Amino acid sequence: MAMGKDIFNEFKEHSISEFFKKNRQMLGYSSTVRSLVTVVHEYVSNSIDATEEAGILPDITIKLEKISENRYTVEVSDNGPGIPKNIVGRALGMILAGTKFHRNVQQRGQQGIGAAGCTLFALTTTGKPIHVISSMDSGRAFSCDISIDTLHNKPIMGNFVELEEVKRGLTVKGEFGDVKYDTGEHSIFEYLRRTALSNPHVQITFIDPNNKEVIFPRSIDKIPEKPRTAKLHPLGLTISDLIETAHSSKNSKLSNFLMENFARFSQGKINELKGMLDVDFDKKPSGLTWEDAEKIIKAFKEIKWIAPESAHIMPIGEEQIKTALKNIMNPDFMYVVERKPKVFRGGFPFIVEAAIAFGGSAGKKSEEGYSGNVLRFANKVPLLFDTGNCAITDAVKEIQWKRYNIDMEKQPVSLFVNVSSVHIPYSGVGKESISKEAEIIEEIKLALMDAARGLQHFIYKKQKLSLFAGRYKTIMRYTNQLSKDLSQLSGKDKEIIQKMLEKIVEEHYPRNNKEDVVEDGAENNLEDKE
Amino acid sequence: MAMGKDIFNEFKEHSISEFFKKNRQMLGYSSTVRSLVTVVHEYVSNSIDATEEAGILPDITIKLEKISENRYTVEVSDNGPGIPKNIVGRALGMILAGTKFHRNVQQRGQQGIGAAGCTLFALTTTGKPIHVISSMDSGRAFSCDISIDTLHNKPIMGNFVELEEVKRGLTVKGEFGDVKYDTGEHSIFEYLRRTALSNPHVQITFIDPNNKEVIFPRSIDKIPEKPRTAKLHPLGLTISDLIETAHSSKNSKLSNFLMENFARFSQGKINELKGMLDVDFDKKPSGLTWEDAEKIIKAFKEIKWIAPESAHIMPIGEEQIKTALKNIMNPDFMYVVERKPKVFRGGFPFIVEAAIAFGGSAGKKSEEGYSGNVLRFANKVPLLFDTGNCAITDAVKEIQWKRYNIDMEKQPVSLFVNVSSVHIPYSGVGKESISKEAEIIEEIKLALMDAARGLQHFIYKKQKLSLFAGRYKTIMRYTNQLSKDLSQLSGKDKEIIQKMLEKIVEEHYPRNNKEDVVEDGAENNLEDKE
Repeated sequence: MAMGKDIFNEFKEHSISEFFKKNRQMLGYSSTVRSLVTVVHEYVSNSIDATEEAGILPDITIKLEKISENRYTVEVSDNGPGIPKNIVGRALGMILAGTKFHRNVQQRGQQGIGAAGCTLFALTTTGKPIHVISSMDSGRAFSCDISIDTLHNKPIMGNFVELEEVKRGLTVKGEFGDVKYDTGEHSIFEYLRRTALSNPHVQITFIDPNNKEVIFPRSIDKIPEKPRTAKLHPLGLTISDLIETAHSSKNSKLSNFLMENFARFSQGKINELKGMLDVDFDKKPSGLTWEDAEKIIKAFKEIKWIAPESAHIMPIGEEQIKTALKNIMNPDFMYVVERKPKVFRGGFPFIVEAAIAFGGSAGKKSEEGYSGNVLRFANKVPLLFDTGNCAITDAVKEIQWKRYNIDMEKQPVSLFVNVSSVHIPYSGVGKESISKEAEIIEEIKLALMDAARGLQHFIYKKQKLSLFAGRYKTIMRYTNQLSKDLSQLSGKDKEIIQKMLEKIVEEHYPRNNKEDVVEDGAENNLEDKE
Repeated sequence: MAMGKDIFNEFKEHSISEFFKKNRQMLGYSSTVRSLVTVVHEYVSNSIDATEEAGILPDITIKLEKISENRYTVEVSDNGPGIPKNIVGRALGMILAGTKFHRNVQQRGQQGIGAAGCTLFALTTTGKPIHVISSMDSGRAFSCDISIDTLHNKPIMGNFVELEEVKRGLTVKGEFGDVKYDTGEHSIFEYLRRTALSNPHVQITFIDPNNKEVIFPRSIDKIPEKPRTAKLHPLGLTISDLIETAHSSKNSKLSNFLMENFARFSQGKINELKGMLDVDFDKKPSGLTWEDAEKIIKAFKEIKWIAPESAHIMPIGEEQIKTALKNIMNPDFMYVVERKPKVFRGGFPFIVEAAIAFGGSAGKKSEEGYSGNVLRFANKVPLLFDTGNCAITDAVKEIQWKRYNIDMEKQPVSLFVNVSSVHIPYSGVGKESISKEAEIIEEIKLALMDAARGLQHFIYKKQKLSLFAGRYKTIMRYTNQLSKDLSQLSGKDKEIIQKMLEKIVEEHYPRNNKEDVVEDGAENNLEDKE
């Protein structure tokens, strides 16, 4: 039984780099096809974040080259602000480091894992570092190679060269093994097409391994508003959040600390808390005890709060979605819904946008005909994988589409759902699906059901019109003979009778001359093909 | 455009504890019900690992108490080797530390995340530390409280007390908020029932929040063989694995280093490599360059290797699965398949076991009747969540069950699948699903299809017998009248004629007196209810 002791000699700490090196599938590096999409996804997300943050209209080029079977280079260039040299190593060569984790700002990246994960993936599959060219507005530019010391999760930098006359922006280029380029539903092309759909202000150029260039042109020239830092809402705080923030605070009074650091906090709220709790709100926040923090968090749940502010949440926008859908799918019909901000887990605000597109290049086309598809997005980033694990998938499944006369198996329908939040609760580190929080599923359902009613209305009118048009034609065929007969019987002029008959028919079956076009000016959310 | 620079002032490193505190759903702490199951799952897995490793038959008690709405305590006690006090802090209060990550041994835990994740979850939902009582065979025992300094991912220990006369083993007790106790398909009861199913050597006692005690008794008294450390197979190595192991090696020659550290390496293989490569195998491994490592890894893929050794993989075992299924489901029929070891991603061996149980308490029973269910396991640990994301689910879906006369919608069928490996490629950090590696899916399908043929055979025979039994009865009804008539016509004795007739009928429709029992001695994998 000395066993136990022997084993404990093996007790060791290990780095997060080692962990993900051994479990790369958790970062999205599972199949060969998916791995290559993951690399593009990480670099493109970072490029859009960086350019937007700097107030620049993003212009991004993705270039793939085939080196050999299962080995490719990926090069992504942007016109963003670049990365300073004192930071670039950690930004690309250290897992859990970055500008995004601490700031409480809505961005595509959140974790400081993605780009360093690419470096780790290149290292483990080809042994090669990532090559970077960074050029800042200051005119200073450099190139270097970045790899990771995985035992210590520290960047390894090499081949540093100062450069001149390089266009502003960042270029990252890596060589990756265990990957495969594919076209199809889960391809880089589809990923970029969907990125263009949810980011109409971004210009994307894609050069595929056959050197074929595809451009997804910018369809809107407006830079989205810069993301703003959000204060945490009291209802989203845990006891340990409160303790940690308090203990690192320089405020002299607990009351001031609360009012300055959290949303919706006023002197009135402090007074309310004082009336409820036996806690000294004048003491230093650095001395806040577990007991007091627990009391305060408990009291938070008992008093009334204004909902978390959602001004820092940046959805895509109704007009932007319409423009992008028109641009990319040119559907016969579309209906866009933007829901009001809601809250999950008590204190985290989020906004759901949903759209349904019908006809055009909406849906999926195969040999057996059309079927519906679901385009999932989180903070404007397309989610292509882990479909089964996602709140959006659950919401779609829970809706009885047949009730809306929508047949997801046979109709050219695309459902578009984007969830925006400062803190998207991803199911996994690879950020390919949204955790099944009840509040989020509910919001997505409401948005989709609203859009479904829009489509139902359109389909109903289309069917009715096509029925009318059929009847109109049939009856018109008889008016000629009937007016002849009536003219003989009544002695009145045949032409006059025929015109009267035609008028009656047209009153009953209107719009006969616009058979294929639906008009609906009253409901301005209904958009039709021009 | 000073933007870029401002932002980079925000560049920070953050700890893995902070990361998971913010993303607890990635560890399995998403819904209230699932969170409570996750806590039990982590502690029970660790207890079974520790006892098995020490060669002890595991005896585990799980006790839940309700503190208030959405707040429970969980206490798990085992009869294992305990944890020494110099290690217990890091074992339960530091993420990415443990005995399992580096050892290349098949265990339930792999990552050094689970138990520390529970501490983090307690801390963030109730602010309370975990209470531990550890008693080792030496007689020394202590209790203490453990929490985490999340900013630095370091343990915080307190209330240390030396104890006397405590039974050997480890007890961990924590108080958790944002949780809910539930009975049903995804409950703690179901988790423990399935744990008993895949671990017939473990005795489990469960005391639920209503103080009701359920015991899952041990059905096999044999301790599974101790897991053995596996050497990595050359085909499972990445360039960076090779470089890192080489650079930390004390061998004086690259050739010896390779032979000592990796599986299936002989002098013959070294000679083969020497013939292929312009690499000096006499030089120090610590001086191995990227270029040489890359050449070596490339050559590995080109030469023939004996398959990875699988002696260190510990499946449950056919007899154990049968005993457990009989014990827990008492099915009318079961068929167990153990596949030979196979390899995924080139070098990682794994073994699939599958079983089908039919009748008894197999399947799911609801108001609408029976339906089939799937019991997923990885290294004997039940997987209750993330069903959509799992290789086992994909394999089940890809099989055309109707071809085997099996109706998963309407029959009382349980599919049982256990994947064993030193390195299970989990899809997520929460370890609730197996990544969809093509080789693993294929093996699961083959195992299930084999089992399905067994069940098909049973169902066919059962149907045939029931047909025979019906015909037998019908025809027997006529023998009396017929023998009377024949006796009159022929003048022979009626009794003799009747016996002859009955003999003929019985020859045509045998086993008439064993209507409900199927015998099949020839196929010893077929097991029937006695």
